[in-house]
Amino acid sequence: MRLSIARADLARVLTNVGRVIESRNTIPILGNVLLTATEGRLQVTGTDLDIVATDSSVATVEQPGAVCVDAKLLADISKKAGGDVSLSLDGDKLIVKSGRSVFKLGTLSAADFPSLAGGKFDSTFDIDLAALFAPVAFAMSTEETRYYLNGVFLHLQEDGDQFIRAVSTDGHRLSRHQVAYPGESAFAGVIVPRKAVGIVPKGLVTVSVSESKIRISAGDFVLTSKLIDGTFPDYDRVIPKANDKLVTVDRDAFMRAADRVSTISTERGRAVKLTIAPGSVAFAVRNAESAATDEIEAEYSGDPIDIGFNASYVRELFSLLPSGPVVMALADSGSPGLVTSAGFEGLTLVIMPCRV
Amino acid sequence: MRLSIARADLARVLTNVGRVIESRNTIPILGNVLLTATEGRLQVTGTDLDIVATDSSVATVEQPGAVCVDAKLLADISKKAGGDVSLSLDGDKLIVKSGRSVFKLGTLSAADFPSLAGGKFDSTFDIDLAALFAPVAFAMSTEETRYYLNGVFLHLQEDGDQFIRAVSTDGHRLSRHQVAYPGESAFAGVIVPRKAVGIVPKGLVTVSVSESKIRISAGDFVLTSKLIDGTFPDYDRVIPKANDKLVTVDRDAFMRAADRVSTISTERGRAVKLTIAPGSVAFAVRNAESAATDEIEAEYSGDPIDIGFNASYVRELFSLLPSGPVVMALADSGSPGLVTSAGFEGLTLVIMPCRV
Repeated sequence: MRLSIARADLARVLTNVGRVIESRNTIPILGNVLLTATEGRLQVTGTDLDIVATDSSVATVEQPGAVCVDAKLLADISKKAGGDVSLSLDGDKLIVKSGRSVFKLGTLSAADFPSLAGGKFDSTFDIDLAALFAPVAFAMSTEETRYYLNGVFLHLQEDGDQFIRAVSTDGHRLSRHQVAYPGESAFAGVIVPRKAVGIVPKGLVTVSVSESKIRISAGDFVLTSKLIDGTFPDYDRVIPKANDKLVTVDRDAFMRAADRVSTISTERGRAVKLTIAPGSVAFAVRNAESAATDEIEAEYSGDPIDIGFNASYVRELFSLLPSGPVVMALADSGSPGLVTSAGFEGLTLVIMPCRV
Repeated sequence: MRLSIARADLARVLTNVGRVIESRNTIPILGNVLLTATEGRLQVTGTDLDIVATDSSVATVEQPGAVCVDAKLLADISKKAGGDVSLSLDGDKLIVKSGRSVFKLGTLSAADFPSLAGGKFDSTFDIDLAALFAPVAFAMSTEETRYYLNGVFLHLQEDGDQFIRAVSTDGHRLSRHQVAYPGESAFAGVIVPRKAVGIVPKGLVTVSVSESKIRISAGDFVLTSKLIDGTFPDYDRVIPKANDKLVTVDRDAFMRAADRVSTISTERGRAVKLTIAPGSVAFAVRNAESAATDEIEAEYSGDPIDIGFNASYVRELFSLLPSGPVVMALADSGSPGLVTSAGFEGLTLVIMPCRV
């Protein structure tokens, strides 16, 4: 293998592929990238055995070849390099040169790099997947025993038109985001694991889905991830349909008041009590030593209602919505609340109350 | 006690005083501030028993008084408050109001707040102490057994003119920074402890020194710190006087090359080997698997010399100096090097070599 490549190109492909590589690995080759030089191109591949990332770039290849080298080391070198970078093999060492810098790096055999074969996909479509996932990702569960909630459920839904929906829940809150389905062929619902959700490239990507894999491509950058092998619960039953106590509040005023009263919360997750009455929402937090109260204006015309929420969950939900009016649809102090904003069509948020 | 105060004033004095307050305290009152309302002013005091910080601000005081309250809580409330803040005592609760927010906070008695009496000072002068300490602080030792090195040695030195010097060392590197002494009366050298060094306000301050204390005032903000009760070593013997191998390098080029080769260092503190020859400095780092070399131009006309330095120490030293030429004065590969820059008069840096 012998080639030269523009510094910025090498840094970019290594950064992209580096997102799937774990910083600590018990299997050494998983800390490496596979470099494959073919005519006119350098391809870089990294994996954690669940996700494979591949990117490639134009390069001047004098001699094709393939080798594995430490991913972080080569990425750091490419970031600090003063100019174009040349890569060549000398025995089992990779020689990296840039300007007057010379590095001799240990290598592993390309043959030992794990290969995760492609397989066939049922459906392929173009979509801004990062934007679809963005207001949903926060609600993924981290409980390992509920592994089927450790990701985003992606599925199609006939609802007059054909929609594609992303849903996640950890049992305390639920987020559902839907947009018009841009594809043509149907696919069965899949659960995209947390790590893959976190590294979806921004902007329009090409998504291919099968029963066991999802492939996400943005130009030369391709991510292929295993899916979570489980059944996502029937989340629709959790979304309240008949909450008739509608409270309209200003998103920023609500968040500021919730933030102020939770100043005295002594541990994460302390509840804030809302007292909703015609014209106003009052906030109260109380601990052994101290108490805090606050109040904002609200549009509400029903019977007064007291309801408690986890203050940080409330702030997280509201922070997804644009400034302006937010509607909370409530039933009673023991039932989940529905949070929506006319400024964010397609997004439905559910939050469970807590005792106060 | 009953008063009202502008939000920004309260936040400012609490932030200033909060710098001395430790976030975890076994003695509860050390997590509090003492609020003292006198005619037209609110004074705030905090301490960790070694340093006392006091600041004050204009306030509309209806009823003077004093009480202790949790420092972090009141600081957070003042940062988030929507407008001016009123403070009043209701039994043993401090009532804090701002807009529609109301907080009831637990208090401790002002009488229980530790008092660290002032004492007399030998010498008082105005100086930019933060600027004097800035290029010295990094070299303070953190070894508790060498407690007399856990701070900056501040002393006067007759050297043609009268200078004030700040010196610190951890045995691996030493930094000495001197400026013309702006004061009139002499004082014996003192060791200012690490924490006080870190919270000196920027810009011109008034410094008062006695044998056991240093007081630093910037407007209404006053820090009074105990000094380290020990003897600073005779550091002058460590500063090489006869290093005649003078190497001139470009500061930025040197730092970049040192940074590039240390990419392959597998642990912090890995040595970089410099090979200095007429016209150039070569850099080399080597570990079990990999090797890195680099080279920059240098002005040098003596015999070739190999010398090893801790790469992160070298970067730290050079980062204190302005861009442009830096002079390293060396003797041999086993003796300390002297680093100076014509662009930073008054600063003398010493670095011990390490084996490579």
